[in-house]
Amino acid sequence: MFKKILIANRGEIALRVIRTCKEMGIKTVAVYSKADAESLHVRFADEAVCIGPAPSNESYLKMDRIIAAAEITNADAIHPGYGFLSENAKFSKLCEEHDIKFIGASEEMISKMGDKATAKATMIAAGVPCIPGSEGILESYEEAEKIAVDMGFPVMLKATAGGGGKGMRAVWNKEDLKPAWDSARMEAKASFGNDGMYMEKLIEEPRHIEIQIVGDSFGKACHLSERDCSVQRRHQKLTEETPSPFMTDELRDAMGEAAVKAAEYIKYEGAGTVEFLVDKHRNFYFMEMNTRIQVEHPITEEVVDYDLIREQILVAAGVPISGKNYTPQLHSIECRINAEDPHKNFRPSPGKITSYHEPGGHGVRIDTHAYAGYTIPPNYDSMIAKLIVTAQTREEAINKMKRALDEYIIEGIKTTIPFHRQLMDHPDYVAGNYTTKFMEDFEIK
Amino acid sequence: MFKKILIANRGEIALRVIRTCKEMGIKTVAVYSKADAESLHVRFADEAVCIGPAPSNESYLKMDRIIAAAEITNADAIHPGYGFLSENAKFSKLCEEHDIKFIGASEEMISKMGDKATAKATMIAAGVPCIPGSEGILESYEEAEKIAVDMGFPVMLKATAGGGGKGMRAVWNKEDLKPAWDSARMEAKASFGNDGMYMEKLIEEPRHIEIQIVGDSFGKACHLSERDCSVQRRHQKLTEETPSPFMTDELRDAMGEAAVKAAEYIKYEGAGTVEFLVDKHRNFYFMEMNTRIQVEHPITEEVVDYDLIREQILVAAGVPISGKNYTPQLHSIECRINAEDPHKNFRPSPGKITSYHEPGGHGVRIDTHAYAGYTIPPNYDSMIAKLIVTAQTREEAINKMKRALDEYIIEGIKTTIPFHRQLMDHPDYVAGNYTTKFMEDFEIK
Repeated sequence: MFKKILIANRGEIALRVIRTCKEMGIKTVAVYSKADAESLHVRFADEAVCIGPAPSNESYLKMDRIIAAAEITNADAIHPGYGFLSENAKFSKLCEEHDIKFIGASEEMISKMGDKATAKATMIAAGVPCIPGSEGILESYEEAEKIAVDMGFPVMLKATAGGGGKGMRAVWNKEDLKPAWDSARMEAKASFGNDGMYMEKLIEEPRHIEIQIVGDSFGKACHLSERDCSVQRRHQKLTEETPSPFMTDELRDAMGEAAVKAAEYIKYEGAGTVEFLVDKHRNFYFMEMNTRIQVEHPITEEVVDYDLIREQILVAAGVPISGKNYTPQLHSIECRINAEDPHKNFRPSPGKITSYHEPGGHGVRIDTHAYAGYTIPPNYDSMIAKLIVTAQTREEAINKMKRALDEYIIEGIKTTIPFHRQLMDHPDYVAGNYTTKFMEDFEIK
Repeated sequence: MFKKILIANRGEIALRVIRTCKEMGIKTVAVYSKADAESLHVRFADEAVCIGPAPSNESYLKMDRIIAAAEITNADAIHPGYGFLSENAKFSKLCEEHDIKFIGASEEMISKMGDKATAKATMIAAGVPCIPGSEGILESYEEAEKIAVDMGFPVMLKATAGGGGKGMRAVWNKEDLKPAWDSARMEAKASFGNDGMYMEKLIEEPRHIEIQIVGDSFGKACHLSERDCSVQRRHQKLTEETPSPFMTDELRDAMGEAAVKAAEYIKYEGAGTVEFLVDKHRNFYFMEMNTRIQVEHPITEEVVDYDLIREQILVAAGVPISGKNYTPQLHSIECRINAEDPHKNFRPSPGKITSYHEPGGHGVRIDTHAYAGYTIPPNYDSMIAKLIVTAQTREEAINKMKRALDEYIIEGIKTTIPFHRQLMDHPDYVAGNYTTKFMEDFEIK
């Protein structure tokens, strides 16, 4: 087993990793930027090394300084957390070259899954359903029509140089395809000087549902069920839950099997997540694979009584997994508490926390680096805490989340607590009736 | 279901009950003494009524004021928590007379189980093993010898007027009985002016192991496994765990069955605890029954994913229980954090909490009414928080407790955190090798 692990991250996830290391009897090294000198991860680690000033590319992204910190402190492994260098193939390789175990995916795996086209091709080869569509740019209208008819309407035409919805058209039947093709190309030409188009199946009422997997160094993988992360704002997840209110036993088995197949096909080692889009007919399509621990991992831990960071460390040390798949027996919800003002378009609200009081009691877990007197620096991600509640049923979990949000006091800054409190009363959320479009019409009271 | 519950208690247990009520959509009324005006239970309840000054017999024990508070606020039930009026037969009856549901045992049940002699006779009738011994005062030495020989040595001679070990003798064989009888009587006569003696089987290496039960209003009961509460100081529990490290599957089945038998025999309604002494041969003997929720109930909740307060409320409202017995799949430990100075013989240390920071993360639960700036009044029990950790194994739970204790910051007062931290490293505790005598030789570092 590792003797000392350096955590190449900050905030709650650095603290999260330190906690499990302590419980496993492994020493820890924190690295920190000058802006984070007062942060809890620095205080709770056995050793701490300052690696530069605040901008991430001067500290948390400085690979050579992090490797040097590991060498100076004799750390035999590095845990990258999420974000920063956690999915950086070069950093994974650099660790290997310096004989430091990278607790994450290999260079090859990160490269393979990091590039969308390669990842999709790999998944198709593994037999995992992907969003059907044209392979690359459409050569002609005739080709577009043939593909659309073959895979069935509705389809989405997209400008290859596109962005912001420009040159994009949803098409629901054959009659509308030609006019859409013409107008989308014209718009693309005008906007980007490039009228190249490709096509994908349009996913109706899409939900973002992901499967947590763990693979070991013996080629074995298992899944720990799903997380529904459809409540998103500009592709940023706001709240997550497991099980998904949209899930059925059949769909879980099928998605779990696909995720395990994907992991075993690429011989995935460690904790990872296979993200899918699920349409209203419960068809599911591979979106991407995250080769790291995710922000929302605690809800899975709560329903399967499983420490995922511990599992990452064990697998990295060469311990085989049991291989058992898990089905949640409980219901867990996570709300991301961000230092943002929900009434001002979620704009960041860094500053000093003047008063701080956490909810507690049965079924309440908090992962945070915040405390009374802590000044949130403006340089980093605005998430300052994760509030996780777990209960026997979804209804009980929502009620528990409400009372926990009501108890949570963070003064001196604005937070997303009022947003979450409102969300927990939203009829569509309460009914489990939400897609990735949910936040588009959400009005903050 | 009840519309509004008055909580006739204070501190963490009042908060605990309020939380579950909120989650169930039930309104709450707090009562408080003037000394508790700043307490969290007052803040978190929907309504709060001041019922008098600090001494408990002027407020929390004032039955008429509490009933009046319930009537004024239209509460249809009263939850008594633990301590105070929770096992007061008169109060239970008073509630009934005022048409307010008492969420606890009936007058009859409390009377029956509150009197030791009646409780023992009832348990013997129910077929639950009790500590064998003389029935009342021994008439002569000959009777003493006959009983001792019949039930087998070792035995304990006890002065009927005894206390503080005076007039008490452990006797390990027949030869020593007469000299012990004579000297114990002489000592009792000198100490209390009363040389009446009785005899009990001496429990070797006793452990305090209790079984949590829940009974419903249809005469059905189930058990939720055991809690080992052997770590005690002057009969005050300090830390508890489940499963007991001394437990076997056979013993759990036998004790669980006895506890359910006891509960069903007396048609027990609500959550209760049957306390047993277990000797080194794994014989178990009924000690007493607590007809209320206990301080240490959360460790059971954590390993069976069960909200016991919710269950109390449901049963009181006439909902039947499932009747399923539970076996813990996880390991949970509770440390009672008291405002006491472990280095000064655990003397109370009330005062203002100047700085407060809780541990968090995976498997950590805190039940507390403490917060930064809170002044602990000197008038009440010194317990200010319960730190509960849960993990897959006992070893992991101990390691988790260590790191959680290390993270827990309470400044301005002395607490028992350093004691618990030392306990978690004690070889006998770590080995699970402790009895109710454990603390007698414990030296605080």
